[in-house]
Amino acid sequence: METQNLIGYSYVKGGKAFKAVNPATGEYLDAEFNAASVEDAGKAMRLAAEAFETYSLTNRSIKAAFLRSIADEINNLGDALIECAMAESGLPEARLQGERGRTTGQLNMYANMLEEGSWVEAVIDTAIPDRKPLPRADIRKMMVPIGPAVVFGASNFPMAFSVAGGDTCAALAAGCPVVVKAHPAHPGTSALVGSAVKKAAKANGLPEGVFSLLFDDGYTVGEALVKHPETKIVTFTGSLKGGMALVKMARERPEPIPVFAEMGSTNPIILLPQALEKRTEELAKLAVAITNNAGQFCTQPGLLLAVQSEALEKFKEALANEIKEISSNTMLTPGIYSSFNKLSGNMLSDEAVTLIAQSNKLDTGKQNQGVPVVTQISASAFLADEKFKEEVFGPFSMLVVAEDTAQLEQVVNSLHGQLTASIMAEKEELTWYKNITDKLAKLAGRVILNGPPTGVEVGNAIQHGGPYPSTSDSRFTSVGTGAIKRFVRPVCWQNWENDLLPDELKDGNPLNIWRLYNNEWTR
Amino acid sequence: METQNLIGYSYVKGGKAFKAVNPATGEYLDAEFNAASVEDAGKAMRLAAEAFETYSLTNRSIKAAFLRSIADEINNLGDALIECAMAESGLPEARLQGERGRTTGQLNMYANMLEEGSWVEAVIDTAIPDRKPLPRADIRKMMVPIGPAVVFGASNFPMAFSVAGGDTCAALAAGCPVVVKAHPAHPGTSALVGSAVKKAAKANGLPEGVFSLLFDDGYTVGEALVKHPETKIVTFTGSLKGGMALVKMARERPEPIPVFAEMGSTNPIILLPQALEKRTEELAKLAVAITNNAGQFCTQPGLLLAVQSEALEKFKEALANEIKEISSNTMLTPGIYSSFNKLSGNMLSDEAVTLIAQSNKLDTGKQNQGVPVVTQISASAFLADEKFKEEVFGPFSMLVVAEDTAQLEQVVNSLHGQLTASIMAEKEELTWYKNITDKLAKLAGRVILNGPPTGVEVGNAIQHGGPYPSTSDSRFTSVGTGAIKRFVRPVCWQNWENDLLPDELKDGNPLNIWRLYNNEWTR
Repeated sequence: METQNLIGYSYVKGGKAFKAVNPATGEYLDAEFNAASVEDAGKAMRLAAEAFETYSLTNRSIKAAFLRSIADEINNLGDALIECAMAESGLPEARLQGERGRTTGQLNMYANMLEEGSWVEAVIDTAIPDRKPLPRADIRKMMVPIGPAVVFGASNFPMAFSVAGGDTCAALAAGCPVVVKAHPAHPGTSALVGSAVKKAAKANGLPEGVFSLLFDDGYTVGEALVKHPETKIVTFTGSLKGGMALVKMARERPEPIPVFAEMGSTNPIILLPQALEKRTEELAKLAVAITNNAGQFCTQPGLLLAVQSEALEKFKEALANEIKEISSNTMLTPGIYSSFNKLSGNMLSDEAVTLIAQSNKLDTGKQNQGVPVVTQISASAFLADEKFKEEVFGPFSMLVVAEDTAQLEQVVNSLHGQLTASIMAEKEELTWYKNITDKLAKLAGRVILNGPPTGVEVGNAIQHGGPYPSTSDSRFTSVGTGAIKRFVRPVCWQNWENDLLPDELKDGNPLNIWRLYNNEWTR
Repeated sequence: METQNLIGYSYVKGGKAFKAVNPATGEYLDAEFNAASVEDAGKAMRLAAEAFETYSLTNRSIKAAFLRSIADEINNLGDALIECAMAESGLPEARLQGERGRTTGQLNMYANMLEEGSWVEAVIDTAIPDRKPLPRADIRKMMVPIGPAVVFGASNFPMAFSVAGGDTCAALAAGCPVVVKAHPAHPGTSALVGSAVKKAAKANGLPEGVFSLLFDDGYTVGEALVKHPETKIVTFTGSLKGGMALVKMARERPEPIPVFAEMGSTNPIILLPQALEKRTEELAKLAVAITNNAGQFCTQPGLLLAVQSEALEKFKEALANEIKEISSNTMLTPGIYSSFNKLSGNMLSDEAVTLIAQSNKLDTGKQNQGVPVVTQISASAFLADEKFKEEVFGPFSMLVVAEDTAQLEQVVNSLHGQLTASIMAEKEELTWYKNITDKLAKLAGRVILNGPPTGVEVGNAIQHGGPYPSTSDSRFTSVGTGAIKRFVRPVCWQNWENDLLPDELKDGNPLNIWRLYNNEWTR
């Protein structure tokens, strides 16, 4: 494995050495990586800016071939990639195989989208020379790439939200060169995928600088990348603190740039009385969504909301039985593990919070074990202190028990922005509780009926983003084909020569894409 | 005329009194206005938040009727509106009549767009229960309003970028209640239009709080509005300094919110040699775009770029002849007038800058006269100091003369983000100068061939926005139907009951709108 920093097509030896930890054993892994320097960051960004001059105008077939080549090269890495990711993340094999499929699936989905072509949102208003009082000029608009992108790899998806994950994939599809700051928890996985992207870029004859990959176990390189004048957009998936630090940096540049940061979310699930009554055992299976992969999903349900009732007591008992039987899981890093223990401990040490259940199944053969725990708080205590709204990243959930429907509504109204909001309800209840169901779309980017929020579908209709603090800008998504919109901006050409326009805007629609042409959608 | 602050449906007397100045006479106008208080701002925002609960879900026909009623009520104001705007802005009658037509035209255009309905970008991926390895859930996405909006009126378009201008119109169409901070230079015009919006809101049975209008000749009310927790989006058109102050305020809130600020732009026009040679007299008519309405358009061409040549000398002479004959015009406010004199004076006092021509026609019968002036600088001097890139708001333009094509390209590469970039060229020149023409779409939101950048078309294809510092986010526009995108965010419903979905997403497409349905565009 090539462990050096990848700047364009060259591997460059970094400075300070670091190693990843196998969280299951607590031991350092063998491969040594070296932090890039501020100069390396500058070099990568300058190369990205040079590449942007041509890559931004590169034919869509070449870009599509590039994305497919990346997917192929990732598959060519074979078991070595899965083994490396398992060692670095503690995530189980099947999950990582699935994640690899999601990663290559995303790349192929974007390739298809590029070839279909309508994503550029072409809009054409042709000239009306004899319009009174003034003639109308010919104006044609479409999306163009915004410029070089900096992508921060996320800890919890070492492939799908990392080096060639959704952000990189969307940026490259848009026509933006990408410089990835690898997450220090999985440098080997990053290096392997980075080599796949490099091979694919070379094989497709793309300019050096269309992709670079830099390592650092500190903050220096990330800061240098965000502050570099050639950087035009930043994406990040991680903590509220980390995301907002990048937003601040980006806003304070001489030229402020947008940051899409996907941050914390507690993904509330509202449990309505009849659903609790009629589907107690089924709802108790939410234990899986709470604890799966040690609860380390952005969409893990950290809050359950309900009105007190006998059915709720039965549900609690059933949920407790489930939780007790779910084994502990290795968490992603020792840091995440200790943060989980601290935050869940803080919650439990508060007198307002009681334990519903904790897993009995500690895997003593492994380190950094996140032990599933479900707690309870009264709605009045929950409403009295903002601290109970904070995300506990890991296999933790808190049931907020309201005295009545009015108080449940109060709890829902008090919540901050979320990636998801779910409701478990019998059909009639959805209209009875209309005040609450109407609120969900104001609270979150995705609202779910009778299902867990985990398991984010990657497609056209998905929205993975929501009001602050779940993301830094609720108008964008980081999953699905819509994720490309973060990396593009509209440009219109007025009175331009037809043969010099981008193909997407030419007369006769040579690419056969959907366009809004004189106020009519046509192809 | 009702001069008090409008909070929901109530007129409320403010505090500190102020009057507008007639810039043509330099005298105060009679009507007295009173600054709203921080409490008033809070009350307006709370009413807006209440109104949002229902207005966000209001039927599109009612919203469309509301927008059309606003247009009708503006027309019902008759000559009084035009006379008031003339007195407050110094702008000529024909221009203001045209601007009124643009304002009502925008309102009607948005009403049509709402009724057509496809603007919500509905995307539907139906369930695939037997997909392997996991079933696909039914997911349906569309745009929903982001929340209460604060709109700052602009000085230079007292109707089209003010109380019921493009921002308000787009926000109301999206389903966002609006609180307008009136521009202090045209409070009477604002009050009149505000009364029209109020009438229209009442007539359509809309909740109080869907619209409020607050006055202040200082910064207190604007700051209170931007910082209010119920505010979810801010739009502004004005100076770089003003816009960035709002961006900073909005970013430093406990819940950061987006600000779309349209700020400074020098709108460069590149004059290529053959075009200069063949169309000298036609190009000299750029004097109109430079000086029209005292050069107080966001898209006024403040920079002309060319390579030295005999043709350029001829053009300069022709341009000088035009400029000398164009009368001075009343500027919008004494403050804008004195700022213009200061900034253009600063430019001219620099030894690198020489005068090409100044108007001989000072209108001595009026005050605050912006006198057209065109200057020249060498490309090397221009490149040596950032200060020459600053916008001089008013009838001022600077010709940057390059020694050769390479230096012209250097100048183009050195420019900051722009709303527009234009090129005057013979057809063959566009390919000869490909390095430069390819650059234009990276520099600006609208690129124009052989025409002036002024006269922004309001339609589907227009992009009025561009890279920083021309706006705070190049991914949005403040003119045209695309302007609504600032006020909306995507939400998806997963596994939802069909009859409880928004009509836009229901099976059978009851609204007959264009939707991306299982990867196919259909209606």
